[in-house]
Parts: sequence; C-alpha cells; structure tokens
Amino acid sequence: MKILDLVTRTFRYTNHTVRDSEGHTHPGPPHDATQSVLEIVTDEGVSGYCFGASPDVIAQVVKPLVVGRDPLDREKIWHHLVEMQRGNRGLSDRVLATVDLALWDLAGRALGQPVYKLLGAARDKVLAYASTMCGDELPGGLDSPEAYAAYALACKARGYQAFKIHTRMPPIAGTPNPREDIAICTAVREAVGPDMALMLDSFHYYTREDALRIGRALEKLDYEWFEEPMPEHSMSSYIWLTDQLDIPIVGPETAEGKMYTRAEWIMHRASDISRAGVFDNGGITPVMKIAHLCESFRVQVEIHSPGAGNLHALCAMAWPGKYYERGLLHPFIDYERPPQWLRTIDDPMDDEGYVHVSSRPGLGQDIDWDYIAAHEVKR
Amino acid sequence: MKILDLVTRTFRYTNHTVRDSEGHTHPGPPHDATQSVLEIVTDEGVSGYCFGASPDVIAQVVKPLVVGRDPLDREKIWHHLVEMQRGNRGLSDRVLATVDLALWDLAGRALGQPVYKLLGAARDKVLAYASTMCGDELPGGLDSPEAYAAYALACKARGYQAFKIHTRMPPIAGTPNPREDIAICTAVREAVGPDMALMLDSFHYYTREDALRIGRALEKLDYEWFEEPMPEHSMSSYIWLTDQLDIPIVGPETAEGKMYTRAEWIMHRASDISRAGVFDNGGITPVMKIAHLCESFRVQVEIHSPGAGNLHALCAMAWPGKYYERGLLHPFIDYERPPQWLRTIDDPMDDEGYVHVSSRPGLGQDIDWDYIAAHEVKR
Repeated sequence: MKILDLVTRTFRYTNHTVRDSEGHTHPGPPHDATQSVLEIVTDEGVSGYCFGASPDVIAQVVKPLVVGRDPLDREKIWHHLVEMQRGNRGLSDRVLATVDLALWDLAGRALGQPVYKLLGAARDKVLAYASTMCGDELPGGLDSPEAYAAYALACKARGYQAFKIHTRMPPIAGTPNPREDIAICTAVREAVGPDMALMLDSFHYYTREDALRIGRALEKLDYEWFEEPMPEHSMSSYIWLTDQLDIPIVGPETAEGKMYTRAEWIMHRASDISRAGVFDNGGITPVMKIAHLCESFRVQVEIHSPGAGNLHALCAMAWPGKYYERGLLHPFIDYERPPQWLRTIDDPMDDEGYVHVSSRPGLGQDIDWDYIAAHEVKR
Repeated sequence: MKILDLVTRTFRYTNHTVRDSEGHTHPGPPHDATQSVLEIVTDEGVSGYCFGASPDVIAQVVKPLVVGRDPLDREKIWHHLVEMQRGNRGLSDRVLATVDLALWDLAGRALGQPVYKLLGAARDKVLAYASTMCGDELPGGLDSPEAYAAYALACKARGYQAFKIHTRMPPIAGTPNPREDIAICTAVREAVGPDMALMLDSFHYYTREDALRIGRALEKLDYEWFEEPMPEHSMSSYIWLTDQLDIPIVGPETAEGKMYTRAEWIMHRASDISRAGVFDNGGITPVMKIAHLCESFRVQVEIHSPGAGNLHALCAMAWPGKYYERGLLHPFIDYERPPQWLRTIDDPMDDEGYVHVSSRPGLGQDIDWDYIAAHEVKR
C-alpha cells in the first residue's frame, strides 16, 4: 500500500463559541467559521481522515515528505516529521497529530478494525469527567461560585462521576484571584457532596506561594488533582510544589517536547501524574510512547482533551489514564449535539458517566460528507 | 472475534546441541528432543502460533483465563496474566511470551499484515551481529583465542558486520579467567581489523574489580559494548561500573521485572544501553513498552536473542535497537539450516549482514505442519 496524496478540504460551519483576548473559549453568538479535514489517499482505494488540519503546512511541508510511503510505516513517517520540525515552526505537534491520526484511521479502515483494537485493547469504555470552560461574566453562565456549584449539580444529574473546574481567569477583572478559586472549589464540593471526584485546572501563572495555598485548600476539600497552576517551562517550580503537596499535581500538558519532556518530569519528580494528548504531543504514536513510559514507572498519566484519537489511546491503555476529558462544557452549550460535520458525537456517554469507544473501523468518526461537500470553501 | 481454545502440540525432532552442567549450549551428538507449539484458536477460523510453549501451564493456568476473550484485547489479557504471576511461578515471563506472540501472530494473520506493520513499521531489515556460543574444549571449536579469531574471520566472510563473543565459562577448568577473556577479545580484534563492531558477553559473576579490568581492556580494543559481567540483581554494582567506564554497559537482560526493572536502571544510570527480549520480558507487548520507555529517555535498547518476535519488534522501533542477535553460532553448527519444524529460517541474512523481516502475515514463520503432524507426541 502506498500513499498517493494528502488532500485537505476546508468548509464553513456555524460556531457557537468565541475566544476571549487571552484565548479562552466561551459561549458566544453564532458566527461563520471554517474547519478543515485531512484525507490521506492510497493506491488501494482506502483513505484515512483527521479534522483540524492546516492546509498550507500539509501541502507545502508534509505532502512531499509522505507521498510514496507505505501508510503502515507510521514510526518511520512520524520520526521523519519530528526531525523536520527543527527550524520549521509551522510543522507543529498539532500538524504531526493530524497526520498520525489520519494514518491510524487509515490503518483501521484498511484492516477493518477500530484503532484501539489494532493497538491491543484494554477496555471499551472510560470514565469521563465534565470539564468546564473557563469562567465568565455571563448571568446564568459560570460567573460565581454559586454558578459553578449549580452547574456541577447539573453535570452530576447527567451522570458524570467527576467534574473539573477551569476557574475565572484574565481578562476578567479581578482575576486571577486565589481566594475566588478556593471559593469556587469550596462551593462545588459543598454542592455535590463528598463522593464526586473533583479536579482544578487553575490560572497558569500563579506564584509558587499562591499555588501552594490553593493546593492546601484542595487537600482539605478532598480534590482528586491540581493542574498547571504555574508555567511548565519552570520545572523547578513543579518539583518544589510536588514535593510539598499531597494532592496529586498533574502535568506537563502544554510543555513542548513530547515523550522526552514527560520522561524528564518523571526523572525529576516534577509531578505526580503525567499528562499526554494526541494534539499536544503529535498523535496517537507519541501518546502511546508516553503511556508506556509512564506505565514502566507506574506513574499515572491523564489524557488531555476529548476526541476520537484520545479515546482510542485511552482504550489501549491498561494502566491509567483513569479519565476521559469530556468538554469543554458550559450551561449554554449542548455538548451532546455533534459538530455539523459529524452525524454523531465521538464520545457518547452513558448514564453512569462512561464514554464508549466506537467499534467502527479506524477512529470510527461518523463523518457527514454531504455537509462537508455542501459547505466546502474553494481555495 | 473470540478465543475458543488454547491447544499445544508436542513433537519430536533431532537436536544437535547439548547443555553443559551450567546450562550453556554447545554442539553435541544428535539426539532426540521435543518441541511444543501453542495454537490460539478463534471462532473465526483464524489461529495464532508460537513455538516454545509449556503445555501444562498453558492448559492449567492460561487457558481458563484466556478462553472467551477477544484475541485483539492484548493489553487486557497481558495485564491479567501479569497479575496472575504473583504466587504462580509456573506462569513465567516465557509462558507469557508464548501467549503474547501467538496473539500478535493471530492478529497479523487475521488482518493480513505482518506484525511489524501492525505495530507501525520503522524499517524492514536490521543489522545483525554474529553471537557465538560460549567457548568449549572442542578442537576446531571455540577452545582458544586463536579459534575465536578464526571463527570471527569466517563470520566476517559470511557478511557479518558485527561479532559478539561469549567467552569460555564454567564448568570449563581454569575459567572464569579475565586474562583469557582479554586474550580472546584481543585475538579477535587483531584478526578482524579495526572496522568490525565487536561486543563481549562475559562470565556473569565477576567481581566489580575484574569487571572494571576487563572493561578497560575492551575500551583499548575499541569494543562496542560490554554485557552482564556481574549479577544483575546487584544494581549498585552496575551503577558503580557504568559510572567509571566509557565503554557502554548493556543491561539488564536476565533480571526479572519487565519494563519496571528497565525503568529503574535508567533512573539510576545502572547501564548505558538497556536490554529487552520477547522471551525475557513476556512478549512483544512488553518489549514495545520498554522500547518506548527507552526512546523517551533517548537511551538505546538492544534486543536479546534471535527469533521472529524480536525481529518484528526491532522493525517497529525507530529508535535503536541497532542490532539483531543472530545465533547462537558455532563452527560446527549450520545456522542457515532451519529447525526441522520450519521450512525456512526466521532470519535470512544478506551478504551485507542485514536480516530481513518476513512480509507474510503475522510473525511470518514458515511452519512445516507436515513435519509436526508426522512427529507429534501424544500426551
């Protein structure tokens, strides 16, 4: 089997979220936006797909490196692309991820198996946590400790067994504010009672001292973990914090460097629980390397972000990944409604809070090609 | 797909090697021996196979745990068997390996792909090293520095680019002897010239001081690595040795503990190059975990022993594994002749010293079922 072409299609859809000046997503008025899908085309009539492609980088950088290869030579292709990243900032880990995910999708479609079975399945469902959007100033949204508490109760009623808070952050006036963070975490714990697992992903530029103060409060509130309160490039800050706190520190998430960075964090005990994600680290291929690294040290690893790629990786991990991150959620957003380019969502959740992986071949995404064709943007 | 049964067949063959009182293999008079093959049978008519099975443990311990499972649930099955190892010494890593290899073989046969392609291929050939048997007292065998030198030249003429010495060891009188080891290593280097890669796998119970003395000699002789001169359960001895020597120390090989032990050796810098093998660690599944662990630290890992399983694992590793271990070799043994139960060998080598992986589905072994049927031993 040989790769003949890498094709991207860009199409319009209606986006119901907006980004604030610091990049956080919130509900917003419906507006036009575009999405792209990568297709890796082979000489045997089978293709693999991934959404979130960067058409220019795919066409200019990736395509010349990949056409003519056997699409099952994933290690060879991935390592070549990794080497090409040096001096080529456009070839981001996110671009690598779209290529790697499309190759895994292709393998599964060609062989008639879901990706998690190709990887060697460990399970077919994963416990989800409700992962909130960052807070806001929207009445009825996530604008106060009481609003977070009410939303946590709504998520509990939906079946979630775990709830992760993203607090209110800049550019909101008066934030960041450790006291408000603690007030939100306290209100949520008081609302949901002692049995629901709770996590905090806070503002990411706190001082060591503020991070320690918040961490101590979370310990008293019996939170499950504390995520990224400081910039991850300062590994020493994380060593300092992890050494003092009992509550598990989770990371690194945004730090570049794939499995290499995760290895250093384990070596230096910079966190308790590691973190990986297909779009953060360059695909399923590196996420499985990180999972195997972490398993070798019996260090847990939590997977960042939702999506079919992360779900298949989680279902091939016998060692935690305990949770699937379902979100980002907000009282104004209907997460159960698929994006316009899918007929069904990637991560259906049952009433006990488990997300079930698709048994369809490949990544199992239920793509609405009619929608895409009808809304394609010619470039 | 579901596993219906685990069947083992035992059959007679003529063995041309014998084991000495310390367990080392040497050429010997032809004699009857038995071999066993495991078949994992499914409800879809496809099976997976692995030689080297332990019929009693398979029947009594493994079969009840595995029948009824999906054979693609490799992580689930493997981790369950690992947990069952506690308190059950019969369920060795070697038994786990036969089950895991048969499951990978089955997956490849079911999906029509060689195992290294399922894993995500990195290459289709690997440089081999000629790996000698331990020395002996056989005239024309490996009984002197000159004999090793002559055999190294014969291997070089065959196309090998690398040659690994197993020295003369107990129960041979006068061994272990560091001076003789160094004399053998010196004679081989002088015979083959400066360009051939050379390695030493010595007696495994030297003192720290003898190991250091031999290692210094190997550095002067420009050897590529030094393997297992001391018992691996004494990790501190390896930290001591690795700290002082420039020549790469390779290990652990025989130390139990799968990827967990390899992680500790990396954490504590107990070797320069790690070591893994499908029959040492419980299959391809753990060898890939170790490969990914090592890759995350950019620590090289060398694969122990020949065979289809190790070759497929090597071909799915973009990060070294530089070499395939071809052997054990001896002037009196024709390694190019397949064992009676195979029609062709697992590891054909070209004239440049590269071993090529099979493109047949599964592990690609060319099994002679007629031979097995004709020589089956009814139990």
